Amino acid sequence: MDSQLDTIRVGKKEVWAYVTACITSFNSGCKELTIRARGSAISKAVDVVNSLERSFLRKVEVKEIKISSDELDDGNKKVWKSAIEIKIAVS
Amino acid sequence: MDSQLDTIRVGKKEVWAYVTACITSFNSGCKELTIRARGSAISKAVDVVNSLERSFLRKVEVKEIKISSDELDDGNKKVWKSAIEIKIAVS
Repeated sequence: MDSQLDTIRVGKKEVWAYVTACITSFNSGCKELTIRARGSAISKAVDVVNSLERSFLRKVEVKEIKISSDELDDGNKKVWKSAIEIKIAVS
Repeated sequence: MDSQLDTIRVGKKEVWAYVTACITSFNSGCKELTIRARGSAISKAVDVVNSLERSFLRKVEVKEIKISSDELDDGNKKVWKSAIEIKIAVS
């Protein structure tokens, strides 16, 4: 694991689970984290960042937000799924 | 309505309804649009931007993405709700 640049993938767990993961990562020396989510988990990823900003003792800065759409092969048809990538950092 | 700067609020309707609203706005001379959503509609807002990028004939550029959390008064307790603002432009 690269302690300087890490990625947290937001999925079906509760928001606090990802917030805890971010805090653990930052406390173990990581300076920058990328939070990724796809589909309906996008809203949860934003919740994670906001909860972290409110609850974490150190100042969290949102560095960059990117959105994209991934093409998935769902059996015989192609589906597009939206994705978000939020890069956060602590000083 | 200011034709240069407009806002589309994404809520409970289908994605295509908002895509159509964006296209109508751009075709009527608007150059820049802000797409806003709160809570679980955040994922839909990202879907709207991605669908627009894929389906609209003109090139759509994502100018800026901002996330925030709004404090709402839900009866006797305060709740935080995440929000997103995506600024898009056509050339």
